[in-house]
Amino acid sequence: MPTESGSNMGFARVDLDRVRRCRRPEVIYCPGKLPGEVAAIAVSLHENGQPVLATRADIAQYGAVRSRLPEAVFHERARCIVVGGTPPSPGSWKVGVLCAGTADLPVAGEAIVALQTFGHTVEEFFDIGVAGLHRLLEEVERIRACGVLIVVAGMEGALPGVVAGLVERPLIAVPTSVGYGASLGGVAALLSMLNSCGSGVTVVNIDNGFGAACAADDILRLAMVPRDGKLKPET
Amino acid sequence: MPTESGSNMGFARVDLDRVRRCRRPEVIYCPGKLPGEVAAIAVSLHENGQPVLATRADIAQYGAVRSRLPEAVFHERARCIVVGGTPPSPGSWKVGVLCAGTADLPVAGEAIVALQTFGHTVEEFFDIGVAGLHRLLEEVERIRACGVLIVVAGMEGALPGVVAGLVERPLIAVPTSVGYGASLGGVAALLSMLNSCGSGVTVVNIDNGFGAACAADDILRLAMVPRDGKLKPET
Amino acid sequence: MPTESGSNMGFARVDLDRVRRCRRPEVIYCPGKLPGEVAAIAVSLHENGQPVLATRADIAQYGAVRSRLPEAVFHERARCIVVGGTPPSPGSWKVGVLCAGTADLPVAGEAIVALQTFGHTVEEFFDIGVAGLHRLLEEVERIRACGVLIVVAGMEGALPGVVAGLVERPLIAVPTSVGYGASLGGVAALLSMLNSCGSGVTVVNIDNGFGAACAADDILRLAMVPRDGKLKPET
Amino acid sequence: MPTESGSNMGFARVDLDRVRRCRRPEVIYCPGKLPGEVAAIAVSLHENGQPVLATRADIAQYGAVRSRLPEAVFHERARCIVVGGTPPSPGSWKVGVLCAGTADLPVAGEAIVALQTFGHTVEEFFDIGVAGLHRLLEEVERIRACGVLIVVAGMEGALPGVVAGLVERPLIAVPTSVGYGASLGGVAALLSMLNSCGSGVTVVNIDNGFGAACAADDILRLAMVPRDGKLKPET
Amino acid sequence: MPTESGSNMGFARVDLDRVRRCRRPEVIYCPGKLPGEVAAIAVSLHENGQPVLATRADIAQYGAVRSRLPEAVFHERARCIVVGGTPPSPGSWKVGVLCAGTADLPVAGEAIVALQTFGHTVEEFFDIGVAGLHRLLEEVERIRACGVLIVVAGMEGALPGVVAGLVERPLIAVPTSVGYGASLGGVAALLSMLNSCGSGVTVVNIDNGFGAACAADDILRLAMVPRDGKLKPET
Amino acid sequence: MPTESGSNMGFARVDLDRVRRCRRPEVIYCPGKLPGEVAAIAVSLHENGQPVLATRADIAQYGAVRSRLPEAVFHERARCIVVGGTPPSPGSWKVGVLCAGTADLPVAGEAIVALQTFGHTVEEFFDIGVAGLHRLLEEVERIRACGVLIVVAGMEGALPGVVAGLVERPLIAVPTSVGYGASLGGVAALLSMLNSCGSGVTVVNIDNGFGAACAADDILRLAMVPRDGKLKPET
Amino acid sequence: MPTESGSNMGFARVDLDRVRRCRRPEVIYCPGKLPGEVAAIAVSLHENGQPVLATRADIAQYGAVRSRLPEAVFHERARCIVVGGTPPSPGSWKVGVLCAGTADLPVAGEAIVALQTFGHTVEEFFDIGVAGLHRLLEEVERIRACGVLIVVAGMEGALPGVVAGLVERPLIAVPTSVGYGASLGGVAALLSMLNSCGSGVTVVNIDNGFGAACAADDILRLAMVPRDGKLKPET
Amino acid sequence: MPTESGSNMGFARVDLDRVRRCRRPEVIYCPGKLPGEVAAIAVSLHENGQPVLATRADIAQYGAVRSRLPEAVFHERARCIVVGGTPPSPGSWKVGVLCAGTADLPVAGEAIVALQTFGHTVEEFFDIGVAGLHRLLEEVERIRACGVLIVVAGMEGALPGVVAGLVERPLIAVPTSVGYGASLGGVAALLSMLNSCGSGVTVVNIDNGFGAACAADDILRLAMVPRDGKLKPET
Repeated sequence: MPTESGSNMGFARVDLDRVRRCRRPEVIYCPGKLPGEVAAIAVSLHENGQPVLATRADIAQYGAVRSRLPEAVFHERARCIVVGGTPPSPGSWKVGVLCAGTADLPVAGEAIVALQTFGHTVEEFFDIGVAGLHRLLEEVERIRACGVLIVVAGMEGALPGVVAGLVERPLIAVPTSVGYGASLGGVAALLSMLNSCGSGVTVVNIDNGFGAACAADDILRLAMVPRDGKLKPET
Repeated sequence: MPTESGSNMGFARVDLDRVRRCRRPEVIYCPGKLPGEVAAIAVSLHENGQPVLATRADIAQYGAVRSRLPEAVFHERARCIVVGGTPPSPGSWKVGVLCAGTADLPVAGEAIVALQTFGHTVEEFFDIGVAGLHRLLEEVERIRACGVLIVVAGMEGALPGVVAGLVERPLIAVPTSVGYGASLGGVAALLSMLNSCGSGVTVVNIDNGFGAACAADDILRLAMVPRDGKLKPET
Repeated sequence: MPTESGSNMGFARVDLDRVRRCRRPEVIYCPGKLPGEVAAIAVSLHENGQPVLATRADIAQYGAVRSRLPEAVFHERARCIVVGGTPPSPGSWKVGVLCAGTADLPVAGEAIVALQTFGHTVEEFFDIGVAGLHRLLEEVERIRACGVLIVVAGMEGALPGVVAGLVERPLIAVPTSVGYGASLGGVAALLSMLNSCGSGVTVVNIDNGFGAACAADDILRLAMVPRDGKLKPET
Repeated sequence: MPTESGSNMGFARVDLDRVRRCRRPEVIYCPGKLPGEVAAIAVSLHENGQPVLATRADIAQYGAVRSRLPEAVFHERARCIVVGGTPPSPGSWKVGVLCAGTADLPVAGEAIVALQTFGHTVEEFFDIGVAGLHRLLEEVERIRACGVLIVVAGMEGALPGVVAGLVERPLIAVPTSVGYGASLGGVAALLSMLNSCGSGVTVVNIDNGFGAACAADDILRLAMVPRDGKLKPET
Repeated sequence: MPTESGSNMGFARVDLDRVRRCRRPEVIYCPGKLPGEVAAIAVSLHENGQPVLATRADIAQYGAVRSRLPEAVFHERARCIVVGGTPPSPGSWKVGVLCAGTADLPVAGEAIVALQTFGHTVEEFFDIGVAGLHRLLEEVERIRACGVLIVVAGMEGALPGVVAGLVERPLIAVPTSVGYGASLGGVAALLSMLNSCGSGVTVVNIDNGFGAACAADDILRLAMVPRDGKLKPET
Repeated sequence: MPTESGSNMGFARVDLDRVRRCRRPEVIYCPGKLPGEVAAIAVSLHENGQPVLATRADIAQYGAVRSRLPEAVFHERARCIVVGGTPPSPGSWKVGVLCAGTADLPVAGEAIVALQTFGHTVEEFFDIGVAGLHRLLEEVERIRACGVLIVVAGMEGALPGVVAGLVERPLIAVPTSVGYGASLGGVAALLSMLNSCGSGVTVVNIDNGFGAACAADDILRLAMVPRDGKLKPET
Repeated sequence: MPTESGSNMGFARVDLDRVRRCRRPEVIYCPGKLPGEVAAIAVSLHENGQPVLATRADIAQYGAVRSRLPEAVFHERARCIVVGGTPPSPGSWKVGVLCAGTADLPVAGEAIVALQTFGHTVEEFFDIGVAGLHRLLEEVERIRACGVLIVVAGMEGALPGVVAGLVERPLIAVPTSVGYGASLGGVAALLSMLNSCGSGVTVVNIDNGFGAACAADDILRLAMVPRDGKLKPET
Repeated sequence: MPTESGSNMGFARVDLDRVRRCRRPEVIYCPGKLPGEVAAIAVSLHENGQPVLATRADIAQYGAVRSRLPEAVFHERARCIVVGGTPPSPGSWKVGVLCAGTADLPVAGEAIVALQTFGHTVEEFFDIGVAGLHRLLEEVERIRACGVLIVVAGMEGALPGVVAGLVERPLIAVPTSVGYGASLGGVAALLSMLNSCGSGVTVVNIDNGFGAACAADDILRLAMVPRDGKLKPET
């Protein structure tokens, strides 16, 4: 029984109106939801013509979704379920996703899957941590060609500050929980990024690849909006 | 004795080349610098035709600068010294600066002074914390007319998350050290903002109004760049 | 062998006298107790004519209780075992239980089961987090009709402060451990609630739905007591 | 220039409408405000027939207020400025304010001044910490005669839990920053109170006597409202 | 191959000389040791005529010990393996072991088993937390008859401070990791005890029942030593 | 107006009965008390024949006390005011007070003054930190001649654990706030002491020399009490 | 497809050039890598004539490596896979590896395996914690014969400071996560070591035996380099 | 009255024997010492032919020293008093001291003064933080010519990790308390350095320039010692 602004399913109010109001579809955050609940929300979104993106999903939740939406795809490392999505706009800026080490790939992957679902093109730069600076320096030109940067790093979290000193683009830093001991579950990387001397670095929560993708999406949509101060999708 | 890429003054390497390389002039972070050192760097920047912005300045540092650059202006609440600046580009997006309470004004002020020095137009929204939601709701249309939002809040730090749910624009949250007891010097607001459910919120360091201004500047410059992937100032 | 003030069972002193002294029956906190111990305490309370409420119970503890008290009910999501309870008083205030996201349901559920066991009527408001403010604003009138509010939220924990600005009722905030990274197991939500600018917000421990129910019970009993300063149940 | 819902003074939006909407007048939180700003807000509230309560005030802010409102009273230990107030309702419940040591008096004082400004009668119980239990036990009957309890304690913060085991009334615990070393500025007392085994204890921020007074006010107003579910002051 | 001061077993240096030097036998701390290693150390101690106490043992470690020392006893809740021990001295002080809740029993049990192995008589006081003060007050006389008190409590950790106000005996407080949320794994109880207003309270590590037993043992041995300043066992 | 159990002075309840009940006189904790209040309590204790010990006193508080009790002595480094005291019992155990560095002297001094006021003889061992182990090893015999040890250390806090391995006496460790950076105001030393591998080490709050003296006093009084289980002073 | 400076394998850029540039081969940090990925990197290094060291490996990762490089050795306690290595240089300094307790052996083991792979000779000193100082003092001469010391300790972390006071050699302290309660996962030992009064102590991350080995390797290589200021391997 | 191993001055035991035993003279840590005490220790060292280095000194302490030792020099920014010192050995390695920003100069200065007092030659690299990487890259060759590196940085603390990736020399990282907000007094930089991916980085306490100098001294002395395993100064 959808209402004007959404569908109250008892355990959740699905916000079907969100795309019109905010341009981005509602996303399913899976932890704490039963597989059947994830599937029910996915079907509800799909039936209303919206792309489905479920983050932090496990294999059981994916099974429940696929049994009702067989076209669902599971990105295992990124822990995301996707059904549908927005095709990329030709000629728009690419988003550069950089990550320091291979252990950061699940978080970078969540950002990439979300960006692609939102209709953006991604340029990947993996395993270019600051301990081997030449790997980063070799890629500077390719990084500068991106419109927005998402920089993912655990442990000491130094990569975003170094990149910000080389390339002045909007840069969203994502600390990861990769590390041990005094990494304190990602808090060390988070603090490092918040204290970055590279001006213009902004930060999202630990392991929050999805949040970084949303921020990049907001920035790129602004860059595509004519300067009369009105957002097309809301008119 | 300026070199090609800067001027090594013994206690500091002034980065005169920065504007060409990065578009934003170098900014003087005052804590730990003697008044004479602040003045010397200011003069060096000014003589090379660059705008001067000194943040976290005190009255003694201002005195030293003014004695050599009489046109220097001191923004007392924002603790900033300014000499010169970039005139605003007509037709560009405005930056909305929101703040929850009057005690957050110094931080908001630092962001505003920096934005104006960088050549942006600012729209102010003061004292609109979530404890009196009607004050925020009355301003939603005016907030939506801004291209980028900087949302400054101490104590519980809830304002950015609520704004992000109402207006999908690039939103930079600035936690402040305003509060007492369990605010832990701004850590409570910082954590709250990092955990914001409003997708797309990014965060800078506690009280870092300047950093938020830099991030907003990066975003607006991208929106002004033609989509062929090349930044004008670097060509 | 019950004594005047209770029953010393070796591993625990069951406080059978508690209802007369304090009006609320003793409640069994299950962690660290063997299934047989939970069952023994439950039987002891039941045989003395008291309602049984066991919180944080697991399925094995429930099995042990049911084998001796077949009418025992297990609220799985809320992790509570209930035998008996107080019927609701007609005409008394309802307790509004609000929660920000579906992942907060176990905590909200514990509060609801405890309130019902104590004889209160509950009005539920689920999935109304501040990221979609319209969901909350649509419910304001129904929330105002409640006498006491319990507001459950994880992550940024902003909901109680916003509700407190809209509805001035006694409001008990319950932070939950829902979240990841910088949520620090609920500490971020806890700090946010403690710093709430909404005046009159009080807070209980992380995930402590039961404690919130007790506080609401204390408040509602006061509202039902004649103003001569004497509590009926104690005379 | 007051608008319907308040007065926008540039640095602050005074919420003159607040009494009608929420029953409690707006309170001036002084830190970060210039003396002249505090005075201007006080005059604005006073001219609109509202009581003035300014918390965390210093002597300079009091001087500025008194120069414009000579009847202003300064409660030095409680750091509060008061002009006017609500007379107590005869026959209503008293609020018991307990505090563990003399160093907690400023926080208890803030609660007492606020309660009296809101029109409540206060019963004081000072210096009754748990290290000398007989002092508390001697007062149990007088404590039970109060409708709501505010229990203020620093250091180990054990008093609220012990009182809650003796007297089942709505109990608001206020941790204070009194202590040294591992008291961590009141965090030890705060944690202790949040973990209280005494069911029904709720907690406010460290040193937040004012917040506790607001919570007590909310509870007592509920107890005075007829049970038809409608708040008189809002009709 | 025992040397004069011990036996170097490669993975551990067993300190056989410890009883002569320090009066208390060496104790085996089991975590991180393989079952065979625990057994080898136990045999080595036993063959040298010393009592064996192994703490934090699991069932596999017990199995390995029992296969070589069949008289070994496993105290399951206290997680201790014991072989032999010192008989209690008639006429000596008893140690009172108090604990707040049933979940604290494993820690209290570790203290009790260690005390008994060291030759002390224990008086148990279980489930007498401060939330039901009458349970504690009923036992004051029996508590006063003990020479040393070990007070075990989790959650708010208030029991030691209250006991110290009632009975001035050497009192060793043991915080436990019992609790949830803001108990922070026992840190809340630890801080509470360190800030206790009850003068003379000393504290050991979280869950360290064994350490408390050692401290009590040191105190009681002092009380048994003639006042000429020489310890008998060392002559 | 003294009552049987004390004197209610409005701002404080002086516990004159304390010596009879607990053997140790009440001590004045000065922070947060006005000079006149400290003096009034001191006079009240003195007039009732009790020794006066005021800790954490400043020079103004001392002035107020001396103006009414000219025989008052101010121990400046220890920040203690003393009037009277108990003479040492001949033949009783001495208390060894060890401290790691000269910066720890104020805390060690507070312990020493308190011990002497309680009637104990102190043996001092200053500046014997573990970085120069020979200084400690030279003193082992003299340390062993003490009945109880108070070991004061800041920074890494290693001294108590090393001493406990050399001398098995009741040992009370006092962390101090001496240090910088990662000493975190004494938390590093506190944690180090709580984790001490030296069995039998107990710990008090950071900088709490007074609390250590009370614990030592409790232990020594036990050693002086005949083993029939009854405390003389209470009969 | 190796490039000049390495081999980009998609999920990782193997730095084959590292030995020439930095003298130490690249090491595989196993967490977060699939067994096949570990094996692929190992083969790539091996085929380029470099020694293989994989740290924090599990048995599945070892299985994958051994199936392709049968000569691979698994050091189970140290969790390291090794293929090949550098033979020790005759006449060079030995590295002393000290550890406080048997539970610290995995961390000490990681340091030892790494040192041996780098071509150093190790002298082991196990189970010599400060609680039994005689064990340490007996070994001082043998410790002094080492050129560099790695001191591994958990719990109170006091060993490095004591050793630094006895032997002035370059000393690298490694805190371990061994302990419970207030050891906070090794943070207590880490803080203790950072605050060490023993001058010259440097510290690496919790459990980072590998990092300590690298630091020791850097130091010893310097001691082997002729003093003309040029490193042989880089020429 | 010097004894064989030192001079017991009541408040401090001056370790005159330290140079023979440990090669480095004892250093005076000034906080908590009265000016006269600092002077007395300085004179005692000087009269025994040792160099005097007093760290964290203030101007009053310097005045007291100079009045007795007129040749004393005060390094104001580094807060060090120096009398005498060891001349540099020709042909030995230089120590490179790098620092990220001008605010880090006091800490770098303490390291430099200590190194020079110990007889080392220092090469300074100031203001080369990672936000402007070209400043660092320009200096790589000059950095490689140093034998040991001390890298000082506050805020994000990224510099040591980047340098370690460029130059494999023994590298001691010194976090500073420079920064604000989430720098947490240097804890952010400390954590960042401990988690550095640059292998071989070791860390000292926040602001501990002196400790870094000691570690560098230990390393360089080892490099100067012949490989027969015996330290010259101790023979």
